[in-house]
Amino acid sequence: MKPKALLFDVFGTVVDWRSGIIRDLTIHFKTYPCSHDPAVIADAWRAEYQPSMEPVRSGSRGYVDLDTLHGENLESIARQFEFELGTTSQKEWLVKAWHRLPCWPDSANGIESLKEQFICASQSNGHIALAVNLAKYNQFSWDVILGAEVVRTYKPAPESYIRACNALGLQPNECMMVAAHNTDLAAARAQGLQTAFIRRPNEHGPTQTIDLEPSDNWELKAESIIELSRLLDDYD
Amino acid sequence: MKPKALLFDVFGTVVDWRSGIIRDLTIHFKTYPCSHDPAVIADAWRAEYQPSMEPVRSGSRGYVDLDTLHGENLESIARQFEFELGTTSQKEWLVKAWHRLPCWPDSANGIESLKEQFICASQSNGHIALAVNLAKYNQFSWDVILGAEVVRTYKPAPESYIRACNALGLQPNECMMVAAHNTDLAAARAQGLQTAFIRRPNEHGPTQTIDLEPSDNWELKAESIIELSRLLDDYD
Repeated sequence: MKPKALLFDVFGTVVDWRSGIIRDLTIHFKTYPCSHDPAVIADAWRAEYQPSMEPVRSGSRGYVDLDTLHGENLESIARQFEFELGTTSQKEWLVKAWHRLPCWPDSANGIESLKEQFICASQSNGHIALAVNLAKYNQFSWDVILGAEVVRTYKPAPESYIRACNALGLQPNECMMVAAHNTDLAAARAQGLQTAFIRRPNEHGPTQTIDLEPSDNWELKAESIIELSRLLDDYD
Repeated sequence: MKPKALLFDVFGTVVDWRSGIIRDLTIHFKTYPCSHDPAVIADAWRAEYQPSMEPVRSGSRGYVDLDTLHGENLESIARQFEFELGTTSQKEWLVKAWHRLPCWPDSANGIESLKEQFICASQSNGHIALAVNLAKYNQFSWDVILGAEVVRTYKPAPESYIRACNALGLQPNECMMVAAHNTDLAAARAQGLQTAFIRRPNEHGPTQTIDLEPSDNWELKAESIIELSRLLDDYD
């Protein structure tokens, strides 16, 4: 059955977070030098991401937005790799690097094309301001921004998917989760959503080892969001 | 100061709710006849709207979405004007008429044009599914859907405006409320937002008596959303 809505993961699936973070760390390090490769710092900063959401998922911490978690994680990384964060506004600028990430080349056109037939929703762990800023930065728009701030928890918590479908007034099987990450798709399928895997073999740089291929028989697999749009034309 | 985000009222400002409701009531009355003019029923249904939100604004009732209120109000109107609602699915179809309202002729093009420079947000008392369905029905998209379901109360409660700005990570004076209703603009200005009045002299039909002109010195006044877009080009 053709879905009515596509729920998109964003970091890695729609935007190339690693290039964007390396770019802004490189700028930061011109003023506040660091002896490590910005790519190493970017990967270390991102590695803090999943564990930092866990207390919110488990309920031991109330909902806080990703700027808060990215800021806390940045302080930890700065201590570990011994670089300065500078003034409060400089630190804020660096945390906001996550609002200025470039899309993969196919993302903006692919999403605008899919919007002709489907409700296209951001279903990211980013909060509303982050999701809208990322889209504006890349000159496209979602039909609707769902995600952590609307559903009040982080993926892959089961409620995150169910509440997103509820917000659209749709049944889970009327929605398709679109992600470059097998764990996200597995969690969505467990709640009854359809699934599409977008292969992003360079999300983690040239030595990526995970999510190079689908780990299960997801309904669709595509090399880009533009290819996903073509596949959905013929999908029933 | 040029705003960064425009927060749009929707019913009356962006969509012509009265024509849409009259259209679907007329269809309904072919099967379930009514001795009254569909325009009278449409106005009566809409007249229940503000009072029905009041318990939620005052906190005496928890948040419920507009489908719920529209459904309750429809039952009351059907009793008053003595017409049948038919099956459950027929009643649901009629409640969902509020998801199928036509835009004013300038709305979709005006919003798409404004999106080139500004974050354009739906800031309606409609819930997320209603707002996304209205936009899809009229073939445009918002940058972000805020409104009652995100801010958990109904306009013109002060928190509705403040929480909308917070969700965008913006200060109130970085946001401009756009509405055809003076009360909405007054409530937004009281919270520090900028204001733009769009004149919709036929919202309530040919005998409209309210909101024919701005009641205060709103920052901008326009005859259409396309004119608003032109005015904002020269606005500092």
